[in-house]
Amino acid sequence: MRIDIISAVPDLLESPLSHSIIKRARDKGLVEIHVVNLHDYGKGNYKQIDDYGFGGDAGMVIKPEPLYKAITDLTSQRDYDHVIYTSPDGEVLSQGLCNSLSTARNIIILCGHYKGIDHRIREHLITKEISIGSYVLSGGELAAAVICDSIIRLIPGVLTDETSALSDSFQDGLLAPPVYTRPADFMGWKVPEVLLSGNPRLIQQWQEAQAVERTRRLRPDLLEDPEDIK
Amino acid sequence: MRIDIISAVPDLLESPLSHSIIKRARDKGLVEIHVVNLHDYGKGNYKQIDDYGFGGDAGMVIKPEPLYKAITDLTSQRDYDHVIYTSPDGEVLSQGLCNSLSTARNIIILCGHYKGIDHRIREHLITKEISIGSYVLSGGELAAAVICDSIIRLIPGVLTDETSALSDSFQDGLLAPPVYTRPADFMGWKVPEVLLSGNPRLIQQWQEAQAVERTRRLRPDLLEDPEDIK
Repeated sequence: MRIDIISAVPDLLESPLSHSIIKRARDKGLVEIHVVNLHDYGKGNYKQIDDYGFGGDAGMVIKPEPLYKAITDLTSQRDYDHVIYTSPDGEVLSQGLCNSLSTARNIIILCGHYKGIDHRIREHLITKEISIGSYVLSGGELAAAVICDSIIRLIPGVLTDETSALSDSFQDGLLAPPVYTRPADFMGWKVPEVLLSGNPRLIQQWQEAQAVERTRRLRPDLLEDPEDIK
Repeated sequence: MRIDIISAVPDLLESPLSHSIIKRARDKGLVEIHVVNLHDYGKGNYKQIDDYGFGGDAGMVIKPEPLYKAITDLTSQRDYDHVIYTSPDGEVLSQGLCNSLSTARNIIILCGHYKGIDHRIREHLITKEISIGSYVLSGGELAAAVICDSIIRLIPGVLTDETSALSDSFQDGLLAPPVYTRPADFMGWKVPEVLLSGNPRLIQQWQEAQAVERTRRLRPDLLEDPEDIK
C-alpha cells in the first residue's frame, strides 16, 4: 500500500509515522508513506496557501490552486483508490471502514487546516471524506495519523502473533475482555480465579461472557447497529 | 492546565506536541505537557514493563507495578481532576466531553499498548476511560494527542480570532457550512453568488441553511441525540 498525505504542517506527522507499528510496516516494505508539503505548491515568495474566506467570517481558508496542484501532481503519476479529506462532515471512521481501506493499493489523505479548505476542491477532487469522531481538531494531521495507524495494522504481515488483531475490540463486534498479567496478587488485588485455572474451555467461556457483558454495559450502541462494526 | 501523559512509546508523541496550536499554547504558558516514559518505572536491567497475559492468549499485557508506580508518583505530587485511560471501552469522545475536560486543572492520560494494561489498574487507579472512536489503534499515544489537541484549543487565549472555535462544527450542534476563498472563479468552478453579495443578512441565512441541510444529510445522528454535542 502507498499512502500520500498532503499537509500544511508536515513536520507534525514526523514522529507518529516513524515509530511503533507504522515504522515496522514501513521497514518491512509493507507500506510506503509520503508526506507532501502543501506549501511547496503555494503562491509567490511566501508560498501562500490560505486566504480570507468569502462571506466575512473570521478564519482563513486553504486556497483552491495549491490543493488542485498537489492532488493532480499525484493523481497524474498513478491511480488512487481514494482521495480522502479528513473532515467533521465525513463518514465516521469505524473498524469496518478501516478493514475496507486496508485493502486499497494507493490512497491520498488531504489534511484540512484553519477553517478548512475551499469547498470546490471537496466537490470536484475528493472522493471520500472521513471523520475520526464528533470533535474538532486544529488540523487534519492527527486524523490522518489515526487513519494510517488503524488501517496499516490490518495489512497482512504487519502484526505478529504477539500483537495479533484477531482478538481486538470491535473485530467481532464486541469489546475485548479484561486482560491480566503477573503477579496474580498485586497488593491484594487479585486476578480472577478462572484465568489461573489452566482450563481453556472455562477461560474462553469467561472471556466471551465478559466481552458480551462489557459491550452491553459500556457500548450498547455496538450491539444495536451491527453495520457499524461489521 | 497541566497534562501528564504516561506512555511506553514517548518519542511517538514528540512532533504532535511541538507544532501548531499545541506548540502555541505551550509557548504562551497556557498549558504544560509532560510525557512520562513508562520504561523508567520498569523492572530490572531491561526495564521490563510487559508480560504474557493470564489465560493463554497471544499478546503482551502491561504489568501492574510500573503503571502503579508511574501514576502514584504523579498523584503524590499534586491533585488530578482525571486519571484518563485511552481505551475502546471508554466514553466516546465528543465535543461536549472536550468542553468539559478543557476546564480541568491537572489531568493524567495513560496510553495503552500491546493487548492493553492489567485490568486491576483500570479498576483501582483510573477515574475515566475515553475512546476517540470505534476503531483499534496500535497504542494510546495518538488518542492522547487527539484528546490534547481537542481540549487545548478550547482553553481561553489559545486560539486567536483567525482560528476561532466559535464557528467550528459541533459547537452549535451542527456541521459548519462550506467555506470558500479567492478566486471566485477557479477553472470555471464558481463560489456561490450569495457569498459575493456583500449582504451580511443573506450570507448568514445561507450559512445557517447549509449547516442544517448538511447536518441532516451527512450526520442526522447529531440532530437525534443532542446530548452528544451539548
